[in-house]
Amino acid sequence: MAQKPSIPKGTRDFGPQEMARRNYIFDTIRSVYAQYGFQQIETPAMENLSTLMGKYGEEGDKLLFKILDSGDFLRGVDPSAFCEGGTPKLAACICEKGLRYDLTVPFARFVVQHRDELTLPFRRFQIQPVWRADRPQKGRYREFYQCDADVVGSDSLLNEVELMQIIDEVFHRFGIRVCIKINNRKILTGIAEMIGQADKIVDITVAIDKLDKIGLDAVNAELAENGIPAEAIERLQPIIKLSGSNKEKLQTMREVLKDSEMGLKGCDEVEFVLNKYALVTAPSLTGRVGGGSALQLDLTLARGLNYYTGCIFEVKALDVEIGSITGGGRYDNLTGIFGMPGLSGVGISFGADRIYDVLNQLDLYPKEVSTTTELLFVNFGDAEAAYSLPAVAAARRSGIRTEIYSDAAKMKKQMAYANARAIPFVAIAGETEMAAGKFTLKDMITGEQLVVSTDELIAKVQS
Amino acid sequence: MAQKPSIPKGTRDFGPQEMARRNYIFDTIRSVYAQYGFQQIETPAMENLSTLMGKYGEEGDKLLFKILDSGDFLRGVDPSAFCEGGTPKLAACICEKGLRYDLTVPFARFVVQHRDELTLPFRRFQIQPVWRADRPQKGRYREFYQCDADVVGSDSLLNEVELMQIIDEVFHRFGIRVCIKINNRKILTGIAEMIGQADKIVDITVAIDKLDKIGLDAVNAELAENGIPAEAIERLQPIIKLSGSNKEKLQTMREVLKDSEMGLKGCDEVEFVLNKYALVTAPSLTGRVGGGSALQLDLTLARGLNYYTGCIFEVKALDVEIGSITGGGRYDNLTGIFGMPGLSGVGISFGADRIYDVLNQLDLYPKEVSTTTELLFVNFGDAEAAYSLPAVAAARRSGIRTEIYSDAAKMKKQMAYANARAIPFVAIAGETEMAAGKFTLKDMITGEQLVVSTDELIAKVQS
Repeated sequence: MAQKPSIPKGTRDFGPQEMARRNYIFDTIRSVYAQYGFQQIETPAMENLSTLMGKYGEEGDKLLFKILDSGDFLRGVDPSAFCEGGTPKLAACICEKGLRYDLTVPFARFVVQHRDELTLPFRRFQIQPVWRADRPQKGRYREFYQCDADVVGSDSLLNEVELMQIIDEVFHRFGIRVCIKINNRKILTGIAEMIGQADKIVDITVAIDKLDKIGLDAVNAELAENGIPAEAIERLQPIIKLSGSNKEKLQTMREVLKDSEMGLKGCDEVEFVLNKYALVTAPSLTGRVGGGSALQLDLTLARGLNYYTGCIFEVKALDVEIGSITGGGRYDNLTGIFGMPGLSGVGISFGADRIYDVLNQLDLYPKEVSTTTELLFVNFGDAEAAYSLPAVAAARRSGIRTEIYSDAAKMKKQMAYANARAIPFVAIAGETEMAAGKFTLKDMITGEQLVVSTDELIAKVQS
Repeated sequence: MAQKPSIPKGTRDFGPQEMARRNYIFDTIRSVYAQYGFQQIETPAMENLSTLMGKYGEEGDKLLFKILDSGDFLRGVDPSAFCEGGTPKLAACICEKGLRYDLTVPFARFVVQHRDELTLPFRRFQIQPVWRADRPQKGRYREFYQCDADVVGSDSLLNEVELMQIIDEVFHRFGIRVCIKINNRKILTGIAEMIGQADKIVDITVAIDKLDKIGLDAVNAELAENGIPAEAIERLQPIIKLSGSNKEKLQTMREVLKDSEMGLKGCDEVEFVLNKYALVTAPSLTGRVGGGSALQLDLTLARGLNYYTGCIFEVKALDVEIGSITGGGRYDNLTGIFGMPGLSGVGISFGADRIYDVLNQLDLYPKEVSTTTELLFVNFGDAEAAYSLPAVAAARRSGIRTEIYSDAAKMKKQMAYANARAIPFVAIAGETEMAAGKFTLKDMITGEQLVVSTDELIAKVQS
């Protein structure tokens, strides 16, 4: 036989069991989003490169998959483009479309393009694949799904609270224990102001973000490398090492930031979210003894993206060693890049692939997450099949996922098929059963066999 | 404001209402497929061009969207490729991946690649978008969904019967009255043999396929143009003009084809499918007065693709002027192109976009096909919002899609939002309600207002 065909590196096929599990994840998230009044949209896989380029930094531009113009893509292209300017210049000449890199930029484009049809605030969710020409490695794919929800056109902090609730509800339904970490970009800005290094905010947050990974000394070294004076680094120490309850941390922060209006506003925002989240996830409301998932102020949380301007959040699974499984935050000017300034938004994104891994590791899938056939009718030949077909139809009408084996194959082969497919019930009709107007129903787990009418058969499989 | 951003021609954004309707279509098809024991898979959007090229004919190759290799795609490319050989040669040098053009070739690739993990017969379904660089026009898009089901590894005609049943069940659930047209490639081959033009089978079927569009004279002219002798065309006439019931048509066909073993086998196959379909869609089984959708033998049905070898089918909506809304057939060697010969298969594909158009034209969407918010809490400020939040949480826990307006905006603005979103109930809590521990619930359709407790509010909205 010829060499097996393959798929591009970093991409995946999903078989029936993986699909059932992935659908369970997507359906759960979709259902919670809808419960909170979010509305689903979808955008095309391909966007104009003018929409995508320059939105993800220089690195991001390189990771865009570009689509060769169709037809005679070289027409009108100056041949010197092939020699001078290198590949980026040529790519710009022969590609005008690219695959979407995330759901955020297409959403911003959607809001601006359809602004006349939308009622603000607009609460949208979107569950679609994205593509990145990243180097594939364990847990990193070139095609993967994002599950985003955003509210645009409102700067109310109630939106942040509701997104925290959604996170809590989704992971509660999954049975995954999580800690939601929260921070606020304004606090970070306040810190930078306080130490007189307002222009170094990005360097500082990037360095602080590495505390867990590289430790305090290395963070301090990195800060120094980035040109932050020793005295300022000294003043940063109590903040980097901050500990205690959320309340205690906030109290300390308010003292440290007492001269920074921006920093204090960040503290107010975090406090509002913490209080309201506690209110709506109280045990009396949720019926859960401990209330909602833990919400923890974490000043080392800075997230990579530079466009967040208010609250930022990230979710860690408590029982599995894995990176952030959900994240998000507030951005003040997402649609400005498309000529529609002043629209504040806040959003979250569930990492479906990592959630899939966590559910697998903890073996948390409910039993019902299977779409396999429940009942197989054995096929002994034309007459027997014709006898069975009305019962097959009746079983399906009763909601039972039912098959009749297509071919009059050997019994052994048909039973092997039932086993391989993990089908729990097999119905058999040979001469004896046909004469009696019955079926022999075999329970494939217990091995029990019963002679039953069609109605009894359906009742037994359903029970 | 800057010029509005746009999306590539031939692609579409789907807003909340369109999404609700599309999900209804996909969910219905998915649910029927599962009922019949079909298992869902998904394959990557990108396939290797070596998988795709040469599978759809020369025209098809041109319609593939090719993806520019990432990184330095010109490295190692002979500069003369830019000048000589033209665009196809250069494209082959700088692109190794393409977007899938249909779901059939990726499925064949999937079966061969995963053959060691699969139990045959394999009943799979797949609902994913495909991309074609076709000239966009009304009803034809460059990105659209296909909803395919196939059985491979079985040549039993029961599979054809079950696929007919699936078609019948899906359109019954949609409330769309259809006629399923059936033909058999073996009958067509028999006809070609009978008139001594076995090598002209493709030309003949293509010409016959146009009968409805261009009429008998033009079909005859086209047959003559294709080098079919006048005498043979004469002998084809009774077949092209065949009429009567399925039974009558089959009887005539059997006489005409009495010397063609292949042709008679085709008649047998069609008869088997017709009889078994009648059996399983009988009114006593379906509870539907007229039984299943009409199944009609139509010899002019030839379908464009050349790989069908047995039964072929196509579905026409009875109450809307539109092309085929579903089609399919039996192919004997789909996986042979990937080095795994001898695997027979049969499949169908629902045309989601056309079904969407038909449901819209006939206004057949059920009322429940809406995912809009059912209950909006008005927000008068911090204290009022805090008072409402527990009721918001309780409503959501009762399964009501609920929002609280994010900002303490003017009442008028919040009511306008409820109207624009078509939210049927609005809950209001001002000083009076708060003092009494109640809400005023307004029915936005009748205008009725009630003062209620949280429990009463939930009961009222649910009823």
